[in-house]
Amino acid sequence: MKMFKKVTIIGVGLIGGSLGMAIRSANLAEEIIGVTRHKYTLNLAKRHKAINRGTLNIKRAIQDADLVIVATPVFRIVEIVRNIIPRIKRGCIITDVGSVKGVIVKEIEKIPRIRKREIYFVGGHPMAGSEKSGISSARGNLFKDSFCFLTETPITNQQALAKIKRFWRKLGAEVEVLSPQKHDSIVAYISHLPHILAYHLSVLVPFEYYKYAAGSFLDMTRIASSSPELWRDICSMNTREIDRVLKTYGASISYLRSFINQGRYKKLSDLFKKAKRRRDSCNKD
Amino acid sequence: MKMFKKVTIIGVGLIGGSLGMAIRSANLAEEIIGVTRHKYTLNLAKRHKAINRGTLNIKRAIQDADLVIVATPVFRIVEIVRNIIPRIKRGCIITDVGSVKGVIVKEIEKIPRIRKREIYFVGGHPMAGSEKSGISSARGNLFKDSFCFLTETPITNQQALAKIKRFWRKLGAEVEVLSPQKHDSIVAYISHLPHILAYHLSVLVPFEYYKYAAGSFLDMTRIASSSPELWRDICSMNTREIDRVLKTYGASISYLRSFINQGRYKKLSDLFKKAKRRRDSCNKD
Repeated sequence: MKMFKKVTIIGVGLIGGSLGMAIRSANLAEEIIGVTRHKYTLNLAKRHKAINRGTLNIKRAIQDADLVIVATPVFRIVEIVRNIIPRIKRGCIITDVGSVKGVIVKEIEKIPRIRKREIYFVGGHPMAGSEKSGISSARGNLFKDSFCFLTETPITNQQALAKIKRFWRKLGAEVEVLSPQKHDSIVAYISHLPHILAYHLSVLVPFEYYKYAAGSFLDMTRIASSSPELWRDICSMNTREIDRVLKTYGASISYLRSFINQGRYKKLSDLFKKAKRRRDSCNKD
Repeated sequence: MKMFKKVTIIGVGLIGGSLGMAIRSANLAEEIIGVTRHKYTLNLAKRHKAINRGTLNIKRAIQDADLVIVATPVFRIVEIVRNIIPRIKRGCIITDVGSVKGVIVKEIEKIPRIRKREIYFVGGHPMAGSEKSGISSARGNLFKDSFCFLTETPITNQQALAKIKRFWRKLGAEVEVLSPQKHDSIVAYISHLPHILAYHLSVLVPFEYYKYAAGSFLDMTRIASSSPELWRDICSMNTREIDRVLKTYGASISYLRSFINQGRYKKLSDLFKKAKRRRDSCNKD
């Protein structure tokens, strides 16, 4: 028996589309329904074999679903879950792929049918993606050897959590379960900060110097090609943690600057050596 | 007739070794002599066909050379040029590949035989490389479609400059001639800052979060695997420009932080959009 009878993916872009492909090739669902806002994307999703069927009608799409995956831009997740909840069948699991978890999980757990556990919500965040977006960049192996966060709160149903955990593992991801708050604090460092810095560096360096750029600058700024709207929304939804990290960041940049302008080169090379040791450890596999 | 009769490369690492290979395949020299400090590197350089002959004896290696390329760590360039200068033949061109030009050109142009233009010095800096180092990472096409800076001062001999310009173009690089000061100010932005930021970010992010890293963090920190000693030396040799850039950087990080913690999301998304437009323009080719 397959893991799910009917999976509905709302939003078939890079992540939603890749999920559809991955679910198909891991054979986890009898049927995958895709929901998009534009006919064009729907046709693309079918052509990429990311979904079995597609519709623009979200309410029809979620009828009788066992699993609903909300893979829309992060800012729309709560509103979509609120809208679909009256028509979702009892016992269905809803999950999402939003890069922020605190506000999303908090708002969704205020919805009565979720609070009463007629329907289960498990917050999710696969640490996979690209500076590209859209179904055309989707690929079925996007989650292989990736990391996926799942959230747990006092409202979380343990069986639903275990099932979503198994689901992500079958797609090749390593899963970690944590509180929404802990999630937001970790990703502020490991994902939100790097994106903000890439945008910042791209604007800071005079544009007339771009022609001289070698691999170092191009690597450091690659993710500045990511969606500005998505990252504005992430900043507005994880403000407290991002602000905390940026404060620490600014202070330590001043500190590092003092090593250079005070000629404390021993300190500076100790910092560089520590950085290299850490970064080299990522290349071991 | 080939461009040079005898080319001597002092320091056969990533850049020196790649230069040897590139000179060979572009057929620019009758003979390429390599100088290293260790027999082991010399053998490797010969095996990689980066040089025709090699020696540990720098004074023998430079005898009768038409072109001497100093491709050692940046901190040793001036000292090496001072040591070899008495034995270099009149009319020979010396060039280097150091990432800093101000102090290097200034010190070398104090040497009497350079000042009197018995021997010509042209400062160089190919914007190519990698976080890896050593002859094993060298490759003959490293400079293809790269950028190379050459310096010009009142002491610079125009024919020597024109020849070195032609030399780099034949290796596939686009060449720009500028003052050592202008060079140091440009690379502080486009190369030195990115490296310092990559080291800094690698140390700032708690090491226990590394396991969650996706492509964004790995890209932003790739060059933190670069040689700590090299980058300490670069910081100590381009202190003024790097300090100036870091000051601007720190101030603009505070500014960006204020967009987030004061909820000025329109400003934030304008910045992100500008960054994306700029960065996307690098992907056009």
